[in-house]
Amino acid sequence: MSSFLRQTYGQRVQNHSNPAAKQLLEIMEKKKTNLAVSVDVTKSKEFLAIIDAVGPFVCLVKTHVDIIEDFDHSLIQQLQDLSVKHDFAIFEDRKFADIGNTVALQYSSGVHKIASWSHITNAHPVPGPSIISGLSSVGLPLGRGLLLLSEMSTKGALAVGSYTVEAVRMARAHRDFVIGFIAQRTMEGIGMQGDDVVDNDDFLILTPGVGLDVKGDAMGQQYRTPREVILESGCDVIIVGRGIYGKDPGLVEQIRAQAKRYMDAGWEAYQERISSPS
Amino acid sequence: MSSFLRQTYGQRVQNHSNPAAKQLLEIMEKKKTNLAVSVDVTKSKEFLAIIDAVGPFVCLVKTHVDIIEDFDHSLIQQLQDLSVKHDFAIFEDRKFADIGNTVALQYSSGVHKIASWSHITNAHPVPGPSIISGLSSVGLPLGRGLLLLSEMSTKGALAVGSYTVEAVRMARAHRDFVIGFIAQRTMEGIGMQGDDVVDNDDFLILTPGVGLDVKGDAMGQQYRTPREVILESGCDVIIVGRGIYGKDPGLVEQIRAQAKRYMDAGWEAYQERISSPS
Repeated sequence: MSSFLRQTYGQRVQNHSNPAAKQLLEIMEKKKTNLAVSVDVTKSKEFLAIIDAVGPFVCLVKTHVDIIEDFDHSLIQQLQDLSVKHDFAIFEDRKFADIGNTVALQYSSGVHKIASWSHITNAHPVPGPSIISGLSSVGLPLGRGLLLLSEMSTKGALAVGSYTVEAVRMARAHRDFVIGFIAQRTMEGIGMQGDDVVDNDDFLILTPGVGLDVKGDAMGQQYRTPREVILESGCDVIIVGRGIYGKDPGLVEQIRAQAKRYMDAGWEAYQERISSPS
Repeated sequence: MSSFLRQTYGQRVQNHSNPAAKQLLEIMEKKKTNLAVSVDVTKSKEFLAIIDAVGPFVCLVKTHVDIIEDFDHSLIQQLQDLSVKHDFAIFEDRKFADIGNTVALQYSSGVHKIASWSHITNAHPVPGPSIISGLSSVGLPLGRGLLLLSEMSTKGALAVGSYTVEAVRMARAHRDFVIGFIAQRTMEGIGMQGDDVVDNDDFLILTPGVGLDVKGDAMGQQYRTPREVILESGCDVIIVGRGIYGKDPGLVEQIRAQAKRYMDAGWEAYQERISSPS
């Protein structure tokens, strides 16, 4: 296991220059949580209720604002207020996947104006490096950070092999803006070449498809435990959705209990990782 | 060159069961155009002005509604009115790229409600077949059609080799909903295996990165001529953006002239293709 994986989140702050990466690591260290909650509901009221319930337990809230039917900008203000109240970062899981010129507009403009409020967003590397340049032209001046999807947790995903290698190389070439990956394992050292040095390879790994109770859904999603993800695979943040807030956003105590359960499982796996012998 | 590439658009209607594919081919045959215009502006007024100007010359209007700052549902009504007035299909270039459950919500819900008005949309195959199932669960009952991005025209794109092959195989396994590809060439016969028969391989190929005057932009986009795309590479629809409407959407006569120029170039290449000796 490499040195980054045995460093604390707090120690790793110094490995990053990007403000969004620093902020996330600082929150993780301070709140002792590597849990992100993915809030995939279509009504503002439920969206805010879930976030207020899980807020104390998470380092990050992952959103899909484009599924919210009654979206308006007051919702963003309320989301930002909750992010200050509970001290978490915001990650709009937009999965940008177009050419540079288009993603720059999608990131900055439209109804959602993602760059103006989302600390972190993500993109597929499939269009090539121009997608990073396009997003960076908007996000870097605002102190935002980008995650590349170098792997996916779904059955039959095509982000494998040379695709993953190329994604990591693109990230290395844009270290000011690309802070890490959506992936299933550490990307450290993958596809190293020429002048690359492993000292610059402290990428944040955020991992969806984490569950304590189920193994998959009907639409191809597959699940692993926090221990498998953090300890065995060297990921940094576990992303959990319905496993925490279930079907009824009104059951606040139940949601808080589930969030705490996942937070504890994630933190325990991390503690075991940083204290493991070299 | 295969038989599909020498069939007329009108003859090819019978090769398709999907209503959106049939509609598009019928429009192409009737209006004698294989031109799609990509309308990438951020203001409703400009968006509608460009579409009204190019409407007579196009089979398809490609939109990015998520970049429109003053979007509301009256805009969709006006877009639909123009699609009836000028007889073109609508293609929201959303490039869905998430897991099945999420894309189903992004397609049906949110502010934009894409499935309710866009005849055709597209998706990256990178998450695996579940992205098709998710979108199909929403779009198929509405008679919608899906294009997979099996290639991209940008520098350093990762949609190459086995990625492209897998994309075509996914499409073959979902012929009721997947009507074709965003690609740079015909996908006919690619990755054929087992019981696959080329008779079922009439996919529509829609091709961005087409220009008569320039070779590329600063953000990695690369351009080819209509002749290269339609005649040499066996694509069906040329997608053109700024090359037609330039910087000023008020210059209606200039926009119409450019649209006619691209329409003529695309149709001439097609005529040459269908009349070429076997």
